[in-house]
Amino acid sequence: MRVKTAAILVIGNEILSGRTQDTNTNTIAKALCEKGITLIEARVISDDTPVIIRHIHALQAQVDIILTTGGIGPTHDDKTAEAVALAHDTVLELNTQAYDILVKHYKSESEINDGRKKMAMIPRGALLIDNPISAAPGFHIGKTYVMAGVPKIMAAMLENVLITLEDGVKIQSQTITCQQAESIMAPVLAQIQTQFEDVDIGSYPTMSIGRVEVSVVLRSPDKNRLKLASDALCSALDQQNIAYAL
Amino acid sequence: MRVKTAAILVIGNEILSGRTQDTNTNTIAKALCEKGITLIEARVISDDTPVIIRHIHALQAQVDIILTTGGIGPTHDDKTAEAVALAHDTVLELNTQAYDILVKHYKSESEINDGRKKMAMIPRGALLIDNPISAAPGFHIGKTYVMAGVPKIMAAMLENVLITLEDGVKIQSQTITCQQAESIMAPVLAQIQTQFEDVDIGSYPTMSIGRVEVSVVLRSPDKNRLKLASDALCSALDQQNIAYAL
Repeated sequence: MRVKTAAILVIGNEILSGRTQDTNTNTIAKALCEKGITLIEARVISDDTPVIIRHIHALQAQVDIILTTGGIGPTHDDKTAEAVALAHDTVLELNTQAYDILVKHYKSESEINDGRKKMAMIPRGALLIDNPISAAPGFHIGKTYVMAGVPKIMAAMLENVLITLEDGVKIQSQTITCQQAESIMAPVLAQIQTQFEDVDIGSYPTMSIGRVEVSVVLRSPDKNRLKLASDALCSALDQQNIAYAL
Repeated sequence: MRVKTAAILVIGNEILSGRTQDTNTNTIAKALCEKGITLIEARVISDDTPVIIRHIHALQAQVDIILTTGGIGPTHDDKTAEAVALAHDTVLELNTQAYDILVKHYKSESEINDGRKKMAMIPRGALLIDNPISAAPGFHIGKTYVMAGVPKIMAAMLENVLITLEDGVKIQSQTITCQQAESIMAPVLAQIQTQFEDVDIGSYPTMSIGRVEVSVVLRSPDKNRLKLASDALCSALDQQNIAYAL
């Protein structure tokens, strides 16, 4: 499948309470960038069925795919599967393929308690996403790809999602690190940005003791334009006697 | 001011491209929790004026305050101040108080180049948020509190925002760590959740090699109810011979 844009929906009260630092967004953002898919936005929301439904509907209207993380475990607070079913006007049902995966993983059908059975309840019409770590699968329905919240499991599922998608136009980037205050750099950067409207130029200061440093990141799908903009910036920095490193 | 609910708006292409791992959301989430303010959601969006305006309008309708991070530096890609002005139907203007702060910081008016002057352009009617780290202030207009993206500066500004807000009802929490698979724990947790509807019970598995562990987090504004729910859960775990630690 060919997709251009994506959004991330991080589902979890533990992120909103500050108990857990989300790292899934960064993992997914990097992978999408590498794949040539533009991440339009990411949202962190609570484990609440109507809230999840509302955000899926809102994002569906904006992007090609929605990647969700969290809320597909065996416990009462895992509400993502039900909410995604409802958001797609369908119901949860026992997915025999998912059930077989769990029986195989837990060695016997007698090991499939209600909690484990819950993890085989998948929206009708969804396709499974393989989980090589802990067996219980994610799933894909419509534009929505539902993955686990545990980072290691999420990363494995993400890999299995991305192989089903065509590569988009990859964004090339060039970072130029400058030993100068951002406010001094500003006019040079603005000038190059005006000259190269199709190249995205971002300026990111880092704070380290006794040292002012700015990373300028140039991004473009066009290698040649990126090279031209990068060369133009280096010339301008030379003229201003601003030290930099590629 | 008394506020109950908040949303975070992380503004930055560098987060969406995966270049930077956002940590500001977690810092703010923890501080809000400590303050007794409920974080309803967090969004990461791009440095794009119409996008920023749209999200501020959407969140204004949902929460008491919006905390933004990023996009208030001196360079061309810093668009937050302008967007926030437009979202509040006002304009950017040279804020004399902000200008004086910058002149004092940079020791002389002649040091205030265009980039630095940009950081004194503040929406008309906004109040400044002090920046003890690098001088250039954040600001507050309507429901929106605008802070820097560099984590150390953001944290200092956040402190200056929070002292202006009254404490809300703090959520008390109790974590119980259980040496058992989540799927085995599920029925016990569901039972206690049904018994204590007013206590939020979350179940968070951690993956470590050769060891299954689940952190159960109980949360409530009412200490007594939290204690009752926690005691009930411990009794239920004892009955099931599930080892746990408070």
